Amino acid sequence: MKRVYNFSAGPSCIFEAVLQKAADQMLNYEGSKMSVMEMSHRSKIYEDIINDCETRLRRLMNIPDNYKVLFLQGGASLQFSMIPINLMKNKKVDVINTGLWTKKAITEHQKLGEVNIIASSQEDNFSYIPKVSKEMISDDCDYVYICQNNTIYGTVYNYVPETNGKPLVADFSSCILSKPYNVSDYDLIFAGAQKNMGPAGLTVVIIKENLIEEKPEIPSMLSYKVHTDNNSMYNTPPTYAIYICGLVLQHLEETIGGLENMQKINEEKAKILYDYLDNSKLFKNPVNKEDRSIMNVTFITGNEKLDELFVSEATKNGFVNLKGHRSVGGMRASIYNGMPVEGVKKLVQFMKEFEEKQNV
Amino acid sequence: MKRVYNFSAGPSCIFEAVLQKAADQMLNYEGSKMSVMEMSHRSKIYEDIINDCETRLRRLMNIPDNYKVLFLQGGASLQFSMIPINLMKNKKVDVINTGLWTKKAITEHQKLGEVNIIASSQEDNFSYIPKVSKEMISDDCDYVYICQNNTIYGTVYNYVPETNGKPLVADFSSCILSKPYNVSDYDLIFAGAQKNMGPAGLTVVIIKENLIEEKPEIPSMLSYKVHTDNNSMYNTPPTYAIYICGLVLQHLEETIGGLENMQKINEEKAKILYDYLDNSKLFKNPVNKEDRSIMNVTFITGNEKLDELFVSEATKNGFVNLKGHRSVGGMRASIYNGMPVEGVKKLVQFMKEFEEKQNV
Repeated sequence: MKRVYNFSAGPSCIFEAVLQKAADQMLNYEGSKMSVMEMSHRSKIYEDIINDCETRLRRLMNIPDNYKVLFLQGGASLQFSMIPINLMKNKKVDVINTGLWTKKAITEHQKLGEVNIIASSQEDNFSYIPKVSKEMISDDCDYVYICQNNTIYGTVYNYVPETNGKPLVADFSSCILSKPYNVSDYDLIFAGAQKNMGPAGLTVVIIKENLIEEKPEIPSMLSYKVHTDNNSMYNTPPTYAIYICGLVLQHLEETIGGLENMQKINEEKAKILYDYLDNSKLFKNPVNKEDRSIMNVTFITGNEKLDELFVSEATKNGFVNLKGHRSVGGMRASIYNGMPVEGVKKLVQFMKEFEEKQNV
Repeated sequence: MKRVYNFSAGPSCIFEAVLQKAADQMLNYEGSKMSVMEMSHRSKIYEDIINDCETRLRRLMNIPDNYKVLFLQGGASLQFSMIPINLMKNKKVDVINTGLWTKKAITEHQKLGEVNIIASSQEDNFSYIPKVSKEMISDDCDYVYICQNNTIYGTVYNYVPETNGKPLVADFSSCILSKPYNVSDYDLIFAGAQKNMGPAGLTVVIIKENLIEEKPEIPSMLSYKVHTDNNSMYNTPPTYAIYICGLVLQHLEETIGGLENMQKINEEKAKILYDYLDNSKLFKNPVNKEDRSIMNVTFITGNEKLDELFVSEATKNGFVNLKGHRSVGGMRASIYNGMPVEGVKKLVQFMKEFEEKQNV
């Protein structure tokens, strides 16, 4: 085996062709006789790299012209504060609580304003996505906040919440680029890159222009206006991470053939795993069927010792990072874009063999 | 020529051996059969990488035990706000103004408190470092802020300002690791990595423990306390940039042989350039001799057209990114750790030939 099958929830597996290209170009990018890592961010050659990255993202996601694309730092966690700092006026926000990452967003928001949790699946271990109707939206909230795909629990919104005209802000960290989404259903989309876009240390923000306001009183680095006015070049951006993201986007366009094709592949991978889980006597997936994520598939045996044994045996066989998040236990296979169908097929084969050995 | 000589002010040239190792390990880090870029930041193998990076930095810089080391995001520009948010009590700070980067720090500080500019070299185009004595320090300032090495103008503090007991906060972005510094002369040192440490997107903060305070009211991502409590793992750190930084530190320890040796090499490079400039009839260095940086060497001909011609001819000959900062013009050779002595010798040879052609 040349490479393991890496089911890590993030940072996570990257298309091998992308890594190979990065290795090949490390000392000499396209005849420049330098590494992308060494390039001045103000140089023409680097500007082409960042502009190409944005152009490809806009094309792949079909991002409307009235949305800005930002390449920032600080991860989704910094967005939990940047969003309220930039968008709050009444200092009230409606949140749908679907797990640890919305809870973290809630905690940061509460430092800056009032949070109304309009729906929550906490009472059922976040195993489903609550249904929200427009009657539930507060009249005076500044926006409605959701986490589109919940990495830890393996749930995803398969509907767009109606927000009664309020802006919809969504954490897309673990589902961006997994399939075509209609960007104009949202007002602000953000994502840490380290799942479907490239290396950790890059955060992408896609924001509707009418939400961007001058705020001279806030730190420049926290201002969407400052970053949009400077095309993500207010200060030195994470240049190499943006380059790798560009390679990932190029692979999605030119090798995969766009997000419709990526969706087919992702749905095929998810179906292989869920079909097996639904028929297994040993493993089960605890998530409400209609809310199942195609990116993160959780499963348990119901026996902690057996879970541990499975993870340990899987690791020995080259299926790594299958342990569930420390807050929930069990197992989780994150099958992001970079995971080949073959990896999932082989994992299921291994799970079957493991199941047979347990004589269930 | 396999590679250019890259005099970029940052991001800037990286030891070729580091880039080669990164290329070799891109698809399979030390038998893990995955890229560092793909590793969960919570995995044992990655924890070893970040811990090794910190250990090497502590050893190289001889960082005392009562200082914490943080690997953060957002560049020096985010520190311009994080520092006052965390350290201000009286909301007053004393700043020595030595150029564009202290001005930017001043602007961000002014959003949060009062700034006293206790000395400035602005009236002489920032061509020198003001001398500060302890009588100049405000009684009620929270700290004294300086920029240790001024990338744009090519100046450096060759003395430690006396601060009358107030904490000394220093931007080391363009001089960290250039030579041994006595860390305990400072209370907080910070540096964007993209000059002497590795790729853009990583910021190193070295902070004395007694400055770190619980501040539950501020955004978690802006709190030194949160980051120190979590060993820079509050959220996903810029994992790949930290890995490259670790390779740079390993090279400094094992190939260069420590910062004393690095200093000798850097002083040799700087001497070659300054000696030539001081004897040239065409080029001159505008900086006060005792404040000259060994990292950034600025020079001008006094004729803008000739400056342009020089930069253009140099580029054609493989000496790239010699154009001065857009705010000052002229030329600048950034000769960070990654620039070999040979690169500077060849640049001076090229400058001599250029000078001869001008018949000065």
